[in-house]
Amino acid sequence: MSGKFITFEGTDGAGKTTILNMVLKHLEATMKDNLVTSREPGGNPIAESIRQVILDRNNVDMDPKTEALLYAAARRQNIVETVKPALENNKLVICDRYLDSSIAYQGGGRNIGEKAINDMNQFATDGFLPDLTIYFNLPVEDGLKRIAQNRDENDIDRLDVETIDFHHRVHDAYQRLMKEYPDRIYAVDARQSIDDVYEDVMKILQPYVNEFKD
Amino acid sequence: MSGKFITFEGTDGAGKTTILNMVLKHLEATMKDNLVTSREPGGNPIAESIRQVILDRNNVDMDPKTEALLYAAARRQNIVETVKPALENNKLVICDRYLDSSIAYQGGGRNIGEKAINDMNQFATDGFLPDLTIYFNLPVEDGLKRIAQNRDENDIDRLDVETIDFHHRVHDAYQRLMKEYPDRIYAVDARQSIDDVYEDVMKILQPYVNEFKD
Repeated sequence: MSGKFITFEGTDGAGKTTILNMVLKHLEATMKDNLVTSREPGGNPIAESIRQVILDRNNVDMDPKTEALLYAAARRQNIVETVKPALENNKLVICDRYLDSSIAYQGGGRNIGEKAINDMNQFATDGFLPDLTIYFNLPVEDGLKRIAQNRDENDIDRLDVETIDFHHRVHDAYQRLMKEYPDRIYAVDARQSIDDVYEDVMKILQPYVNEFKD
Repeated sequence: MSGKFITFEGTDGAGKTTILNMVLKHLEATMKDNLVTSREPGGNPIAESIRQVILDRNNVDMDPKTEALLYAAARRQNIVETVKPALENNKLVICDRYLDSSIAYQGGGRNIGEKAINDMNQFATDGFLPDLTIYFNLPVEDGLKRIAQNRDENDIDRLDVETIDFHHRVHDAYQRLMKEYPDRIYAVDARQSIDDVYEDVMKILQPYVNEFKD
């Protein structure tokens, strides 16, 4: 048995967080100590302190490249301090977002360019990629509708204050990533009911669940 | 008249901060509103909050590449929010440390590699370099001697807890930068008395002082 690194990706409103919480609840019972969970930006004290700078609503003047570098810094620390040590201990590591998010959000959404973001992140990741990425695929219009329904004025951060064009660019970048990494990125149809999406995700995860069962 | 960007660089113990404060005191009286000062990491609220993460003594587990990315993030924000707007308004901008510090400290000192640091920083700076850099040149042994004399247990940060080898690598990287950018980097002999170093620095700055006098 060797460790495996699985990431969850998706646009806003695609239900990624909801499903991820359901999946983790199930896996925590099944795998116990063989499971390590993380999130981006964050996952350890240094990365979480970087997360606070990124998501601070007072930082409205943050340049897109500053933001991209901070995400890369948090990513680097998470890889070195959390993900790689867990993989070396043969754990299953599940991380909420990773490099694909930076390529889609900063590269596509914020117009920095997908290649520029990918190149800069080579410095941060040394080319380290997940074994498997589950992508919650949802048309932009459906995502925006869900965001509007769920919006709570007390719970918006800077990323929500964005234009429809931004969400289209993020979505399009994810579509290109799916084409570029067909063996790594598995898309689930996020237009389905929560239960159906959960079922699809668990089917994809099944081989790993069996391998890492406690 | 057009804006000019001047940076101060040097190894620990070279007297850079002491001299810089003397220089700024003089220039503030002479130039008034034509002078803008900054420092790295920092210079504006976002960059200062990144500075706090970098210099937090609790963050002893910070990976060198995380640190390099954080410096680049703070640099980016300082360029976009402070330095470039000031230059567009025809100011003289003097900054305590810039890209050369990352190349020397993270590239050389922390062994990431000078080229890797420079390449990654192209993303952060878009190739933007100072018009003039004043480098406080001091043999490593002299610097370490001064650090030992001035050491105050209440005033050490993580950078001081380093080996002699580290300081040699930083010094050597600066020497290579001097050779690579002979037209930009002016070295002053920091072995001299403070008054003599100050005089040398002011001589180098004189053309700028005249140009930007209020």
